[in-house]
Amino acid sequence: MDSTTPEARLAALALEPIALPVFGSFVAAVRTGDLLHTMGHWPLRGDRPVTGTVGAEVSLDDARDAARLAALGLLGTLVAHLGSLDRVRRIATVTVTVNATPDFTQHTAVADAASDLLVDVFGERGHHARLAVGVSSLPADLVLELTAVVQVTEA
Amino acid sequence: MDSTTPEARLAALALEPIALPVFGSFVAAVRTGDLLHTMGHWPLRGDRPVTGTVGAEVSLDDARDAARLAALGLLGTLVAHLGSLDRVRRIATVTVTVNATPDFTQHTAVADAASDLLVDVFGERGHHARLAVGVSSLPADLVLELTAVVQVTEA
Amino acid sequence: MDSTTPEARLAALALEPIALPVFGSFVAAVRTGDLLHTMGHWPLRGDRPVTGTVGAEVSLDDARDAARLAALGLLGTLVAHLGSLDRVRRIATVTVTVNATPDFTQHTAVADAASDLLVDVFGERGHHARLAVGVSSLPADLVLELTAVVQVTEA
Repeated sequence: MDSTTPEARLAALALEPIALPVFGSFVAAVRTGDLLHTMGHWPLRGDRPVTGTVGAEVSLDDARDAARLAALGLLGTLVAHLGSLDRVRRIATVTVTVNATPDFTQHTAVADAASDLLVDVFGERGHHARLAVGVSSLPADLVLELTAVVQVTEA
Repeated sequence: MDSTTPEARLAALALEPIALPVFGSFVAAVRTGDLLHTMGHWPLRGDRPVTGTVGAEVSLDDARDAARLAALGLLGTLVAHLGSLDRVRRIATVTVTVNATPDFTQHTAVADAASDLLVDVFGERGHHARLAVGVSSLPADLVLELTAVVQVTEA
Repeated sequence: MDSTTPEARLAALALEPIALPVFGSFVAAVRTGDLLHTMGHWPLRGDRPVTGTVGAEVSLDDARDAARLAALGLLGTLVAHLGSLDRVRRIATVTVTVNATPDFTQHTAVADAASDLLVDVFGERGHHARLAVGVSSLPADLVLELTAVVQVTEA
């Protein structure tokens, strides 16, 4: 297996993209030119979304695990829209919104779990600009959402 | 009237774009290449902004109505900047920030009201990626804001 | 000194770009085509980040000052990635997330402090679309974050 491909790196980590269902009147991704704009991805663990508020009933470790799951959801969208992760030229931006208590301050540690996974999978092409914020509520009490803008190569 | 144009579909729904004033040191939209980046649009009902917190004094139905009004505000910006809604090639992304209580969970139902309107008006070109989140406060106590990135055709 | 360059205008205001360190697994900016996508910039005053909640222990004036500092952080990123601010063709969008109490309503006044600085420095090219929202928490208790999409010219 070619260890230089994102798929190979993902397999070496024993991880798989997660194909998220879309609940709502939108689509998972839209491409304009060489930019792919994505929806907010959420953490699906088995057959259940990960819910709750970080700083309250959700621990930092669980939040980091949720961030990794959301990043795998992004990979699922990329596979579905691009056919291959090798068509990712650059992860341009990632925005992570964390359902958190007002006194929570460790958003960076949460979002880093997603960012580190993207760098592990894409190498240099995975280095992105990022915004991480805490929000007071999310759809269906999701613990976090992750959206991205991705530069892609032609098919 | 050509029912295949966005303007015709909007008229058939007995709806009109809303031209929002800009309060602050910014502009309603900026075009770079074929992408139009817009401000956060807010719901103007008659001559008053729709304000309040969803889950508290604002009901789900009122929030959905506000989301439709904000989408009409986006249409007003598109008309002002493009001349015609027919220059919309694709609504790429929509972000909806809902002023909501921490226990509110129905952001998807709120944002769908805006998204459905966009699909009603633009058809396939209206299908967009979306992020919907709850926030703890908004300017002037607005109930929600809606921003978009829109792919446009040349004049 | 040529008063028509952004650098000259900045010097006339006795201001300097601020080079922010990056804490986390991301980079300050990524360019795709002629768009530069940036991280969330935060206010660094001297050697300390500006922290706290607006509407509680942070006053409107202090929040506006923090917004100006975050805008100077954006300028620092632009200088680092472009070499010269004169390569800014257009500030396309700015998003300001304010760590605020649920009853805070003056986000526009806060964000305007950043927007006005950008227009002072870049003139017409500084006019941007904007989204300003209140959030319930930010990394390290930062008082606000400012991210931008900037259209740039070739080197």
